[in-house]
Amino acid sequence: MEDTGRRFAPSKLESFAVAVLTRVGVPEDNARIVAHSLLAANLRGVDTHGITRLPIYVERVQAGLTDGRAQGVVVTESETTAVVDGQNGLGQVVGTTAMRLAISKADRAGIAAVAVRNSTHYGTAAYYAMMALDHDMIGLSLTNSPSLMAPWGGKRPFFGTNPLAIAVPAGEEKPFVLDMATSVVARGAIILAAKKGEPIPPTWAMNAEGEPTTNAKEANEGGALLPLGGHKGFGLAMAIEILVATLAGGPFGPHLGELYNNPDRPQGVGHFFAAMRIDRFRPVREFKADMDAMIREVKAQPLGKGFDKIMVAGEPEYNTEAERREKGIPLSDAVVADLTKLGAGVGIPFEL
Amino acid sequence: MEDTGRRFAPSKLESFAVAVLTRVGVPEDNARIVAHSLLAANLRGVDTHGITRLPIYVERVQAGLTDGRAQGVVVTESETTAVVDGQNGLGQVVGTTAMRLAISKADRAGIAAVAVRNSTHYGTAAYYAMMALDHDMIGLSLTNSPSLMAPWGGKRPFFGTNPLAIAVPAGEEKPFVLDMATSVVARGAIILAAKKGEPIPPTWAMNAEGEPTTNAKEANEGGALLPLGGHKGFGLAMAIEILVATLAGGPFGPHLGELYNNPDRPQGVGHFFAAMRIDRFRPVREFKADMDAMIREVKAQPLGKGFDKIMVAGEPEYNTEAERREKGIPLSDAVVADLTKLGAGVGIPFEL
Repeated sequence: MEDTGRRFAPSKLESFAVAVLTRVGVPEDNARIVAHSLLAANLRGVDTHGITRLPIYVERVQAGLTDGRAQGVVVTESETTAVVDGQNGLGQVVGTTAMRLAISKADRAGIAAVAVRNSTHYGTAAYYAMMALDHDMIGLSLTNSPSLMAPWGGKRPFFGTNPLAIAVPAGEEKPFVLDMATSVVARGAIILAAKKGEPIPPTWAMNAEGEPTTNAKEANEGGALLPLGGHKGFGLAMAIEILVATLAGGPFGPHLGELYNNPDRPQGVGHFFAAMRIDRFRPVREFKADMDAMIREVKAQPLGKGFDKIMVAGEPEYNTEAERREKGIPLSDAVVADLTKLGAGVGIPFEL
Repeated sequence: MEDTGRRFAPSKLESFAVAVLTRVGVPEDNARIVAHSLLAANLRGVDTHGITRLPIYVERVQAGLTDGRAQGVVVTESETTAVVDGQNGLGQVVGTTAMRLAISKADRAGIAAVAVRNSTHYGTAAYYAMMALDHDMIGLSLTNSPSLMAPWGGKRPFFGTNPLAIAVPAGEEKPFVLDMATSVVARGAIILAAKKGEPIPPTWAMNAEGEPTTNAKEANEGGALLPLGGHKGFGLAMAIEILVATLAGGPFGPHLGELYNNPDRPQGVGHFFAAMRIDRFRPVREFKADMDAMIREVKAQPLGKGFDKIMVAGEPEYNTEAERREKGIPLSDAVVADLTKLGAGVGIPFEL
């Protein structure tokens, strides 16, 4: 991301987001959840899923395609499971409702899973998995997204980048937080290369004819992302689609609605959340000590050519968060312009 | 795998395996489980995890390193969870005990998870995940294995190829069965290339200096497998290691014992199994109809360059199984020689 040097206080950006969302009719509780999730992404350095998404969320609420008041309702449940209908609410609100439900069920039953249909873009998968950490649980968060990635053997986008996130508490070390798309790269990486006129590795995407391409522009226009490791990433993406769409009774792959440039219909996104109590397996203190031991040993391994350290999943994001909490969140001129325009449109000046 | 044209009836190979195992003191119930699992792998075309493993299993039972009589015992449990101590039993026996327990708990509670320590090589991960299919459940099976794969950024083997398997029933279509290692390839692929003197892609492995290599021999001698998609495969392998080792209280990565060339100590393998009732989320009939719809739609997508069909996870193995049930299982001369020698050693002639 382009960094012009302008940094903003997280709390001020968060207040701006809350003010804009409430101004367009989102209840304050819901607005706070969305704003917190967006700023958590910016703090962790995942700027693609940060406050840059606020304008499209607001646009879709204003268009009536997203129901800012919805929180999601339980349509089926047992002591360990539930299906939540997201009512086309804001994905962060629906996701938070569902993950809280999974955690509360797991608190009583040991392990629980909640599938969600009729939701919308929920930001980073990690946000929900990480909600389990303070409860000494392992958290899992999955979602689908509109078609971007070809099946292995195909050439048209079918599944989205379908990410998975898993969060595990440690002791003195930072928690293990894996959040990964099942494509080789996010589409943003290809858009960026196309803008810069740079080539891309042939493993990232194919062109409209179904051939691997190094031309970012070609990949971007009628092409498709390639799945991680070929058939493996395709298999993972489909497994995730089953859990988030088929299990909840929602649409899959090409039947989802786009987030951008889609003024006509809801998204129909699906999610899947699970939480599991560590103390049902062994004492939490012992588990955390063993997590620390594994993290330390893996980080102390001899380095490969061209590396100056080994980092475990979540570590780069925790490092970025520490730095950004102190120095603020850098926003590019383009994002500042977007937010300024957004604020002007609803009468909330972006003056931070 | 080299196919000399000699094919064997699955039932005869299975009987041979049962006879050999019982001859060295494995109780018949346990022997039948191991033999069934090995032949299931051969039928599905996963010959690396088929009857070719029988000699090393027998060798370790005879050496007292694997306890052929053990079935695994529950050391902690709740209505949705358990920890099983594998007592250094045969991995297939321990795995079957644990997955049966997960299924029986899920049958009552909706969802259940069982972590296992002190086990041994359990064959294919899919075997256990697939046990859930007949119960209209989704099955998950994870295991660790001795060090083969470098951490992303490191150069020494640390985690094993740590596979994951997930099985989901469909309606008229074959079930979805994903079984994948978290390395780019299995070590067997590199051993094979080294034997043939062929080069390998630079994405598969690194040499002892921690540089990606195209020299299979170099990769094989002091090198390490590369994780699938770099940091992503490393993250997945570590997430799996946490669930199979840390959660169960077993050793991790470099602290596991080898299967081969290790006459000194038990393996200390860990597994993790989960099962989830589909009908806790929605009617099974609707779910299966939607599975069929997704499978059919993905298979009908336009093809990429160089492909003549799109296959979903599990489909190649079901096709192979149909063919091998009819025509028998092909075994290479080397495997036949190994089995002949094994049989001669224990007084069970390999005459099929």
